[in-house]
Amino acid sequence: MAKPTIGFVGLGAMGFGMATHLVKEGYTVHGFDVFAASVDRFKAAGGTGAASLRHSAEGKSYYVCMVASAPQVQSVLFGDEGIVQALPKNATLLLCSTVPASYAQSVSSELQAKGRGDIKFIDCPVSGGAKRAADGTLSIMAGGSDEALEAGKFLLQAMSDTNKLYLVPGGVGAGSNMKMVHQVLAGIHILGASEVMGFAARLGLDAMETGEKIKETEAWTWMHENRLPRMLAEDWNPGASALTIILKDVGIITTSARQADYPTPLSSTAEQIYLAALSQGYGSKDDSAMVRQYYPDSITKVSASKSEEEKAAALQLVYELMMAINLCAAAEAVSFARYLKVDLSQFYNLVSNAAGASRVFIKGGLEMIEGRIGTNAPSGYKTVDDVIRRLEEVVQKARDLNCPLHLGSTALNLLLLTKRAGYGKEASTSVIKVFG
Amino acid sequence: MAKPTIGFVGLGAMGFGMATHLVKEGYTVHGFDVFAASVDRFKAAGGTGAASLRHSAEGKSYYVCMVASAPQVQSVLFGDEGIVQALPKNATLLLCSTVPASYAQSVSSELQAKGRGDIKFIDCPVSGGAKRAADGTLSIMAGGSDEALEAGKFLLQAMSDTNKLYLVPGGVGAGSNMKMVHQVLAGIHILGASEVMGFAARLGLDAMETGEKIKETEAWTWMHENRLPRMLAEDWNPGASALTIILKDVGIITTSARQADYPTPLSSTAEQIYLAALSQGYGSKDDSAMVRQYYPDSITKVSASKSEEEKAAALQLVYELMMAINLCAAAEAVSFARYLKVDLSQFYNLVSNAAGASRVFIKGGLEMIEGRIGTNAPSGYKTVDDVIRRLEEVVQKARDLNCPLHLGSTALNLLLLTKRAGYGKEASTSVIKVFG
Repeated sequence: MAKPTIGFVGLGAMGFGMATHLVKEGYTVHGFDVFAASVDRFKAAGGTGAASLRHSAEGKSYYVCMVASAPQVQSVLFGDEGIVQALPKNATLLLCSTVPASYAQSVSSELQAKGRGDIKFIDCPVSGGAKRAADGTLSIMAGGSDEALEAGKFLLQAMSDTNKLYLVPGGVGAGSNMKMVHQVLAGIHILGASEVMGFAARLGLDAMETGEKIKETEAWTWMHENRLPRMLAEDWNPGASALTIILKDVGIITTSARQADYPTPLSSTAEQIYLAALSQGYGSKDDSAMVRQYYPDSITKVSASKSEEEKAAALQLVYELMMAINLCAAAEAVSFARYLKVDLSQFYNLVSNAAGASRVFIKGGLEMIEGRIGTNAPSGYKTVDDVIRRLEEVVQKARDLNCPLHLGSTALNLLLLTKRAGYGKEASTSVIKVFG
Repeated sequence: MAKPTIGFVGLGAMGFGMATHLVKEGYTVHGFDVFAASVDRFKAAGGTGAASLRHSAEGKSYYVCMVASAPQVQSVLFGDEGIVQALPKNATLLLCSTVPASYAQSVSSELQAKGRGDIKFIDCPVSGGAKRAADGTLSIMAGGSDEALEAGKFLLQAMSDTNKLYLVPGGVGAGSNMKMVHQVLAGIHILGASEVMGFAARLGLDAMETGEKIKETEAWTWMHENRLPRMLAEDWNPGASALTIILKDVGIITTSARQADYPTPLSSTAEQIYLAALSQGYGSKDDSAMVRQYYPDSITKVSASKSEEEKAAALQLVYELMMAINLCAAAEAVSFARYLKVDLSQFYNLVSNAAGASRVFIKGGLEMIEGRIGTNAPSGYKTVDDVIRRLEEVVQKARDLNCPLHLGSTALNLLLLTKRAGYGKEASTSVIKVFG
């Protein structure tokens, strides 16, 4: 069977990679972007340029939308020259943009209301970055009707890694919710990477050595490992992953949390500090530049002059900080996912293999999901009291150094509220109980 | 009876006012400061300069220590040339510096250990600012043995307002604890003043008009009224109340909270943002300069171009933000004071007439203290759910404007944790229940 022609809108860093990958896979792709230069670049890479948004959609039975935000999606789909008017009957529409689940659901309703219920609509945000987009190895979280998923599956498979296409139960909105709860971890860990490295610098630790050591420990996060080279090189103009991107994603989390009356203390703290950095002009810089919120100069300029013993003690504080942040991040993500009735087994599998991963989540997240917390927790966990005691030492040390610890401080207060609610003597994974 | 000669160390903004007031009251005051210029200034104002720290103490049966921090106190009292060696037998020593209660208690122990248990030691931090120091109308919170309080009372009275000398039950440490729980409110309200005015500017509201209106409402705080003129005039170089002062006080709160394993989410958030501002070079500026963390330019430059209706709606958001912050601040302060077994009736009276006051505290703090919360609350209170709903609208609006709301966001998460713990339908004053 001949491969169908694909319509595509949104040729930014991610969309360009996805669209050119489809070209490499043998599809004819009619691509459009509001920036003419992006269309030209796509044509140079073998794509077919569409003269207008409408042209990109006319006659296309398969269409991919990869613009940056819900307002852009709304304009692309339902604006005066929007694609919904132009798509042929029974077309399959993949919405790959990261949007709130409630917005994805509103698209379904609006399609019905506009008499285009025939369009097979799939809510399928992606994760993985520009490189994996270009390689066709993204993680994709797809929600939609069985019919829509059946129709669009070949296209989802073409863009995703073999083991990283998640058909999320729950229909339209379920894909976006899955991405969102994944981003709880990603959004906290990105700031966490800067917080621990900035704290390490204030402690007088060598940045390269500390970064490498952290990666080997239980405190590892995917984000820390991924951002570390850019943080060390200060390679953030322009950003490989601009602050505005994670700020948008975290905004979706906290907006959805408010809609659900659900607390997200660490995500909220991260968002506030991202907003503060935005005000300082960091919007287009790489998010690893958040280290500047904790240390005023290049962390590689720290000249370490400590004894081995002092170094080990200081490194231990950095490790404890990161462990406590990762623990509370896991609890926040799992509890919110559970509250939203996200398929937790799929969630666990997805996060463990994606950008939100941490060793703490991989180990402790499963205990939280399976309810093996409190007195049911397997041995090998510290108690909540233990984590508090260690984190208190960290926060006091940071205070003595006049070093902000936005996430560490929020984590400590969350743990102390957990203790006050009576869970201090239980396993550290019991911090999830404070979310109710 | 002739007035005794007083020894005095620490002739900074507060100490200078206190010492010169004592001179005006007819005391001979031998003043010392590490800055010779401060001693000269004191001499010019009628004081007697002491040539050294030791000279300021020798032969003085009454001594006032008003240096800036516990480490300075330690050096002044117990250093190589410290006053403890020089004070005569049975001297009365007033420690007016703001220090942790645990530190004040350690001074008692060290006096005993050094064989100077004869010294009548009073732990008596003050509040009220430089002007009231110079007028002899400070609030003073004094703890000590009955014998010490009896001996020092005339001096405490000379420096304080008639109704604002609090003899706090509980001995040495009780005065410092009382000051500390008062500062919970002060420390949050100082940042709160900047947060609401910065948010108002982002909403496009006229700063002067908004500030004046807020003062007339239930959202009034002493700090907002006091800081507003300096915030509007950007009169913060050098600061009438430097950022480093409130940062030190908040540090005492959070350090003591960690020692007690007690959560202080709003104080911690305030501290982190003060630390961030310190890193940006705001240490010596007036704390009303914190408005810069929320709005990048002078808030008086906002040109209001709203209809009356739009203005009223925007002002309502500012009001709701401030009400929610003040509510959570009151809950944090009352719960921590209760936990520390502070005399709550005295605490209520003190705060209501001091720099930590808010109309929300004056009304709702009493309900919290008397336990008339939850289903026992008198009518006239919103429910926790109501406060959440309004604050969610505020936080969403700020997010749409890319305006950080550090305290508002922390307050919302605290309220949401309260709701998740099952107290949503109870009166808003029930937020205190989440502290356990």
